[in-house]
Amino acid sequence: MLSLRTLYLSLASLAFPAFVYCAEAGQHGDHGAIVVEFLLSLVVIILAAKLGGEIFERMNQPAVLGELVMGILLGNLALVNFHYLDFLKTSDALAITAEIGVVILLFEVGLESHLKELLAVGFSALLVAVLGVIAPMFLGYGVSYLLAPDLPWYVHAFVGATLAATSVGITARVLKDLRRMDTKEARIVLGAAVVDDVLGLIVLAVVSGVIASISQTGSAAVDYGAVGIIVAKAVVFLAAAVLLGRFIHVRLVNFGQSFKVAGIPLAIAISHCFLWAGLAGLIGLAPIVGAFAAGLVLEQSDYDEFTSRGNDTIEHLIHPISSVLVPIFFVVMGMKVDLSVFGSGRVLLLAAAITVAAIIGKQVCSLGVLEKGLNRLVIGVGMIPRGEVGLIFTGIGASLVVGGAPVLSAELVSALVVMVMVTTVVTPPLLKALFARQAA
Amino acid sequence: MLSLRTLYLSLASLAFPAFVYCAEAGQHGDHGAIVVEFLLSLVVIILAAKLGGEIFERMNQPAVLGELVMGILLGNLALVNFHYLDFLKTSDALAITAEIGVVILLFEVGLESHLKELLAVGFSALLVAVLGVIAPMFLGYGVSYLLAPDLPWYVHAFVGATLAATSVGITARVLKDLRRMDTKEARIVLGAAVVDDVLGLIVLAVVSGVIASISQTGSAAVDYGAVGIIVAKAVVFLAAAVLLGRFIHVRLVNFGQSFKVAGIPLAIAISHCFLWAGLAGLIGLAPIVGAFAAGLVLEQSDYDEFTSRGNDTIEHLIHPISSVLVPIFFVVMGMKVDLSVFGSGRVLLLAAAITVAAIIGKQVCSLGVLEKGLNRLVIGVGMIPRGEVGLIFTGIGASLVVGGAPVLSAELVSALVVMVMVTTVVTPPLLKALFARQAA
Repeated sequence: MLSLRTLYLSLASLAFPAFVYCAEAGQHGDHGAIVVEFLLSLVVIILAAKLGGEIFERMNQPAVLGELVMGILLGNLALVNFHYLDFLKTSDALAITAEIGVVILLFEVGLESHLKELLAVGFSALLVAVLGVIAPMFLGYGVSYLLAPDLPWYVHAFVGATLAATSVGITARVLKDLRRMDTKEARIVLGAAVVDDVLGLIVLAVVSGVIASISQTGSAAVDYGAVGIIVAKAVVFLAAAVLLGRFIHVRLVNFGQSFKVAGIPLAIAISHCFLWAGLAGLIGLAPIVGAFAAGLVLEQSDYDEFTSRGNDTIEHLIHPISSVLVPIFFVVMGMKVDLSVFGSGRVLLLAAAITVAAIIGKQVCSLGVLEKGLNRLVIGVGMIPRGEVGLIFTGIGASLVVGGAPVLSAELVSALVVMVMVTTVVTPPLLKALFARQAA
Repeated sequence: MLSLRTLYLSLASLAFPAFVYCAEAGQHGDHGAIVVEFLLSLVVIILAAKLGGEIFERMNQPAVLGELVMGILLGNLALVNFHYLDFLKTSDALAITAEIGVVILLFEVGLESHLKELLAVGFSALLVAVLGVIAPMFLGYGVSYLLAPDLPWYVHAFVGATLAATSVGITARVLKDLRRMDTKEARIVLGAAVVDDVLGLIVLAVVSGVIASISQTGSAAVDYGAVGIIVAKAVVFLAAAVLLGRFIHVRLVNFGQSFKVAGIPLAIAISHCFLWAGLAGLIGLAPIVGAFAAGLVLEQSDYDEFTSRGNDTIEHLIHPISSVLVPIFFVVMGMKVDLSVFGSGRVLLLAAAITVAAIIGKQVCSLGVLEKGLNRLVIGVGMIPRGEVGLIFTGIGASLVVGGAPVLSAELVSALVVMVMVTTVVTPPLLKALFARQAA
């Protein structure tokens, strides 16, 4: 262990002057100093993300929770009067990197979902998904309205939207570990989760579109005409991204096949992703909506010609990029949690109430299961985890600004992150207990 | 060809409103607009880089020249009154991305060079390298002083430093194509090029360090004491990066081997690179000096334990990241060339004189060849290309600021880029002609 202590001491002796420098450089803004600050920020964040991920995996928890907790720790060092890492919270370059990270993440999620599977999902899965989006939205709206009646209606709507989308990765992993992936319940949960992603993105598109229009007009009254336009815009955009996106992408790939210069497949896939993410942002939707659509229409088989020439598959090429950028998003997300707000009982109450709404809301899903003889509780519990999707929505809510203030206050962000963590942590033991009871 | 036209039309119809938006968004600075602008900038730059690379490779020229030319075109669209892409030139996020790209590039160059080979290089190669760094520096200084006597001495020194470092990739490729890699001349050129990289980085470290100290003190007088301190700092930093860097890296890898979470090898390698790049920047050296040193001490065999567990090699993991980021650097570099300055005969004269100094300077190399019976011209010509290293130095010179003005003016940047392009383009035919004459 001596060598480990030496390692920490040498890292610390290197790092400390760096942090003092960055804490000072943050005040003036010359270009070289910004790059140095950014490089050192990335070192801190990447190492913290991996350390957090490892600690949580060893506790049989998903790595993403560890990244989040590390972010919470890094973001709240000011509580113990440690200010040398304050520059992490003010770095614009880091914030933009985190946003590119989440764009890449949603592109990967889209890549893993396939348009055909989406269209072929069973009626039960569709009904489960729709109920599982609507019920938590209303419950979330209600809880937020009851506990913080002084906030404008669109804040409640955003809280509701954040409760909508399931993050099925956790459930899939538990079902796999328990060897229950071949059950009908598992197929319904996984099918519903894909539909859920799309519905969640439409809800996000609509809610954030409405907020953008409120921010422009300055009037917070519900304008049903404007909401209608935004719904239409979101639906037209998704349809265009799928139809036109597929058309352009296939032609770009065919065109690229005559190219001999290195790196064409990755350049096409990344440009395709960033183009649709950028276009989504352009019309006032979240860039991740476009990134997901871009991933959805991209089929690995489009690149068969390239892989036959010795290129890696797209997923293989994207993976090193996402393995660096995606954890940055979660650490930066964690840094937005302000632990000092939990000093007030109101925030604890808010966190508890939102979490309960999130859990109960998804139990309504089981009403959508029409087949008999299925374990409805397994389906309801399997839909509980909000994971990364909930965090992404929370992050967007924290960055949307109306009249100079973010839509989600530090208190709401902190409460929603607690909700994400609790729903993610409780699901695996609950599922295990349900299967154990069934077997008994 | 109809489908190709349709493709361009659909891309153009999507892209045009995007550019109008970005041209407007550039004026106010809200966060969402910055991300959208950044995403669309990346699409334009990545596609332009690949198109330029392909066109130049088809003309038997290196892809990097194509990326540069595309950058020059994108950066000079204002000449034809096209202003929709102006946001590319003002995007801070893009400038920072380009800098991270060049950090990754130098890390890769370091990875490909090995410390052992560097220490084992023959005496001839060492002498060739030293002469090949000193002669062009003095010639460059002299040419710059003669043609622009009103500029301060450190500008001439920077021009000289830019002429110092050979970029041997081009020569290696030509020697390989001509099946001359096994000749003694080839081994001397390749050995000298590695030493050349290290010497060039020391020269850069010293020159930019001196400029940073001038910028702080405000006095442009040659302070030999200060120069001595900077030389000492550069040498001590490189020694520390090699010795301490290797020590910390090996321990970090050993520590990381007990981790089970995904992505550890890449996280360690990237953090190691960014840490030393950041530390170099911290003490006033260019971050690429640290990145090169970080690559130099990293041996692929350090990661054998990880690759045996099914992880890719570090070079394989870094490659997708560099294949996206590195071309961004060259396009952004090209955008710094202001074609309008070539209207003045003075800039054309400057470009021609600097190019001649760059070519003649490297011919002095052949004096270092002590063995008899070798073709000295092949060695002198083989050292001519400045390629990416010259561009990197030029880029740093353009970003260093003394008293509010960049060290390298738009005129000097443009002249130096011309020098890089000419030295890179003339080498392959010259080498071919020399070998043909030898064979005849």
